[in-house]
Amino acid sequence: MTLKSLACTISAVLLAGCGSTVATQTYNADLIITNGQVLTINSEMDVIEDGVVVVKNDQIIAVGNEGLITQYRAEKVIDAQDGIVMPGMVNAHNHLPMIAFRGLGEEGISNRLFAYFFPLEAEKLSRELIYNATKLGSIELAQSGVTTYADMYYHMDEMAKATKEVGLRAVLGETVIKFPVVDAKEPYGGIDYAKGFIEQYQNDELITPAYAPHAVYTVSKDKLQEINKLSAQYDVPVLIHVAEFPNEEKRIKDETKATSPVEYMDEIGVLDERVVIAHGIHLSENDQKLLKQADAGISYNPMANAKGATGIAPAWDMYRADMRVGLGTDGPMSSNQVDIMRTLSYAANMQRLKHSDRTIMIPEQVIEMATLGGAKALHMEDQIGSLEVGKKADIVIVETQSANMMPSYDPYATLVYQANPSNIDTTIVNGQIVMENRVMQTVQLDDIRQSVVEFEADITEFAKELSKKAIKSKSLMD
Amino acid sequence: MTLKSLACTISAVLLAGCGSTVATQTYNADLIITNGQVLTINSEMDVIEDGVVVVKNDQIIAVGNEGLITQYRAEKVIDAQDGIVMPGMVNAHNHLPMIAFRGLGEEGISNRLFAYFFPLEAEKLSRELIYNATKLGSIELAQSGVTTYADMYYHMDEMAKATKEVGLRAVLGETVIKFPVVDAKEPYGGIDYAKGFIEQYQNDELITPAYAPHAVYTVSKDKLQEINKLSAQYDVPVLIHVAEFPNEEKRIKDETKATSPVEYMDEIGVLDERVVIAHGIHLSENDQKLLKQADAGISYNPMANAKGATGIAPAWDMYRADMRVGLGTDGPMSSNQVDIMRTLSYAANMQRLKHSDRTIMIPEQVIEMATLGGAKALHMEDQIGSLEVGKKADIVIVETQSANMMPSYDPYATLVYQANPSNIDTTIVNGQIVMENRVMQTVQLDDIRQSVVEFEADITEFAKELSKKAIKSKSLMD
Repeated sequence: MTLKSLACTISAVLLAGCGSTVATQTYNADLIITNGQVLTINSEMDVIEDGVVVVKNDQIIAVGNEGLITQYRAEKVIDAQDGIVMPGMVNAHNHLPMIAFRGLGEEGISNRLFAYFFPLEAEKLSRELIYNATKLGSIELAQSGVTTYADMYYHMDEMAKATKEVGLRAVLGETVIKFPVVDAKEPYGGIDYAKGFIEQYQNDELITPAYAPHAVYTVSKDKLQEINKLSAQYDVPVLIHVAEFPNEEKRIKDETKATSPVEYMDEIGVLDERVVIAHGIHLSENDQKLLKQADAGISYNPMANAKGATGIAPAWDMYRADMRVGLGTDGPMSSNQVDIMRTLSYAANMQRLKHSDRTIMIPEQVIEMATLGGAKALHMEDQIGSLEVGKKADIVIVETQSANMMPSYDPYATLVYQANPSNIDTTIVNGQIVMENRVMQTVQLDDIRQSVVEFEADITEFAKELSKKAIKSKSLMD
Repeated sequence: MTLKSLACTISAVLLAGCGSTVATQTYNADLIITNGQVLTINSEMDVIEDGVVVVKNDQIIAVGNEGLITQYRAEKVIDAQDGIVMPGMVNAHNHLPMIAFRGLGEEGISNRLFAYFFPLEAEKLSRELIYNATKLGSIELAQSGVTTYADMYYHMDEMAKATKEVGLRAVLGETVIKFPVVDAKEPYGGIDYAKGFIEQYQNDELITPAYAPHAVYTVSKDKLQEINKLSAQYDVPVLIHVAEFPNEEKRIKDETKATSPVEYMDEIGVLDERVVIAHGIHLSENDQKLLKQADAGISYNPMANAKGATGIAPAWDMYRADMRVGLGTDGPMSSNQVDIMRTLSYAANMQRLKHSDRTIMIPEQVIEMATLGGAKALHMEDQIGSLEVGKKADIVIVETQSANMMPSYDPYATLVYQANPSNIDTTIVNGQIVMENRVMQTVQLDDIRQSVVEFEADITEFAKELSKKAIKSKSLMD
C-alpha cells in the first residue's frame, strides 16, 4: 500500500509546471474533482491526498496532486473535501430485474427454485416489468457506487433502455437455455433474440451486449459451440454460471467424461478469453489453471453463496494467481440487494474463514477486486476499473463525515468495514454525473414508485398461492 | 410467521371498545406511533399491519391495531406510514471506545493484538478518550437502531456518562484482568474500580453495571470466584470472553483438568445465571448443555469472528435448544463498526454455510435474535426485546421507501438482507426520542467532531510507529 501525498504526480499527457506558481497555460475540461483522498487503483496503488481528477467528455484526462488545479479550467468543479475519490465499483454478476421478487420465499423453503423462481418468472415477467425493475435496480446501483454491472436475463433491450436512462454502464447477456422462456417461445430462442440485441447495441458507449448461456447442464454442446462462434464473430462476451453446484458435469454424463464443467468447456472448445464465469465455487486446481490459460473472467459472489449455503469459491487462490477475479452479488432473489458495498466484507471474511487466516484479503485487495478486478473479470480493464489518464470517467465520491465513517485511518478499511451505501455521495459514469450529494441527476425514484407499488401488490397476491404450495424438500439446484 | 392484520388486538391492560365508533373514554399517554407495520416479537411473533404502539413515561402501555388510536391521546404522535416498527436492537458484545482505533492494523498483520491493541491502549487510552469515543460510538448505535448494548472495557463511569447523554441503555462491565490497565495500576484493580461504579449506577434507569473478567486464562480461579460472589451480592451480570479460541483451558492447565473453559467455570462454581459469555465459538455439546443448565447468556458475533478467522459459533444449535443467544459485533477493532444491521445477514449466512443448509436461520429468526434474543442473552427479557405492554419503550422505526428497501414483501427479509443503517428513521429508548427522521435529538455529532479530529491526528502519528514494528508472525490470541 502506498499511502502518500505525491509531491508532484502529473499523470496527464500534458506538460505543465510542477507545483509552480508561475502562470502556465490552462486547458479546458468538463469536470474537475478536487480535495479528495484519491484511490487511483493504478499499478502502484497510489493514494493521493488532496488529489485532483480532471474529466473531459467521457474520459479522465488528468490525475494528480492539488497542483493540477492551476492547469485546468472547467465549468463544473466538485469539492470532494473529506471525501474518498475512487473508481466506480463493478458488480460482475447479477439478474437485476429479479429485484421485483426479492424477499419472497425466504421462509426456509428448500425447493425455492421450483417453488418460487420459475413460477414467478413464468407468470409475472413481462417487457414492462423487466424495464421498471431494471430502473429500480439501476437507481440502487448508482446510489451504492456501482457504475458497471454484468447481467444475465431476458429482454435485454428493455434492460439496456432502462440502464441507459439511469446512466450506468453494463454488460448485458441475453439468456440462452433449453426451455421456453419469457422472450423466446422455442428452446434456445435466446440465440436469435441476442442477434437483434447485439446488432442494436454493439457500438453503444454504455452497453456491451453479450450472450448468456445459462450453464453447461442447461445448454447443449452444439448450442454452446454455436454461441462460442457467434461471440467470436461479434466479439462480445459470454456470461455463464459455472461450478455453482458440485459435479455439474454429472448432469450431462452422456455428453462427456470430463470431471468438471470447466474441463468440459475446454474439451468442447468453448473456454476462451470472452468467457466470464459466475460463482466458480467448486473449482479444482486444474480448473483454475484452465481458466487462467483461457484468460477467462470470474465473478466471486461471496454473500449470495453464503446465504444460499453453496460454499466459498477459491477466490484468494485465484487472486494470488493474478487471475481475472471480480465481485458480484448474484440476482436479488439470491442476495436481496445489488450493492457491492455489502459484499466487500464478505469478500475478505469468507476467504479468511476458508483459510483460517486473518491476514489475507486485506481491505486494499478487496477494493482492488471491487473495481479493477471487476473490470478485468469483464475484460474491460483498458476502459474502466482505475482512475488513470485515458480511462472512462467512472468515478465515485464517498463521504467520511458521518459517525460510522469516523475515524478513517485507512481509506480501504473504512470502505470495506465501515461504509454503507448511504455514504456514497456522488456517482459519475462515462463523465456524466448520475448522482450528486445523494440526489439522483438522471432519473428520479419517484418516476417509478407507482409502478413498483403496482407490481408489488400484484406479485404479493400470486406469491401467497406459491407459498401454500411450497414444500420442504431438497433440491441441489436451489 | 404470523403475517396478519389483527382484527382487534388490544394488548393494553385497559378495556375499551373493539373497533367501536362509539365515543369511549380516552386515556393520556406521552407518545403514540401509528400506521406502521409493527413487528411485536411477542410469543406469537404477531405482525400488525397499520399498528399502533402507545407509550407513557418509559413504558409501552398498549400495542394493537388502528382502533387503538381512538382510545389514547398524546401530545406527540409519530406517523410511521410505510415504516416498520420494531423493538430496538441489542448489541450483546462490544468494546465501544475502541472505535477510536478502528481501521488500524488492517494491513495483514497477524500479531495485531500485541502489535496494535495493547500498545495503543497503553499509550493512548484516557478518561477523556473513553468518554469521547463512547459518545461517537453511541451516536452510531442510535443511528443504526441499537437501543441497548453490552460492553467490556475500562473507566465504565465515563462510558456510562456518555451513553446516558446520548440516551442509550447499556450493560457496562468493568474489566478485571491480571495485568495493570489504564484504570487500575495493580493487577485485578478492576474489582475495586467496579465496586465504586456499581454502587454509583446500581439503580440507574439506563445503565446496568457489571463485572467483566476478561477470560478464564487472564483471571485467576480465586479472582473469578471472588467476582462470582460479588456479582451475587450486588445482583449484577458477569460478562466474559469464553471459547473464542480453541483450547483456552490449556493455557491454565496447572489449574484444572477440565477439557473446556465452560467445564472449568462449572467446576470452580462460577457458571451461573448472571454470566454472559462472548463468542462461544468452540463449544462442545457438553459445554452447550452446561450453559443451558446454568441459564447463561451467549453473544454470537458472526461478523467479527469471520473477519478474525476465528470460526463459526454453534448458534443455530443453541437457538434451537431455546438458549439465550443474542447478536454482538465485538469491539470496533475487530468488527470496525458497531451496528447490528451488518451483522444480521452474517448471523444467518454463517450458520447456513456451517450446516450446508439454506433453509435455516430464516430472517424472522434473525430479527428475533437481534432483539428478544439479545435481551435474553443479557437476562433483560422482562424489560426489553419486544413490543409488549409493560416493557420499556425501546422502539425503532425503519423506513421502506428508499430504493434499497423496495419492494418489501417480508419485513424480516427486508431488514436482514436489504436494509442498512441509513434506513433507520427513528430511535426511541426508555420512552425518550433519541433520533427522529434521522436527526439526533439528544446530542449532536458536531459536538464531538473536533475531539474526534484531534484524537485521530494524535493516534495516526503513533500508529505509524507501530506499523513499522509490526511483524508477520502468528499469534493464537490475535
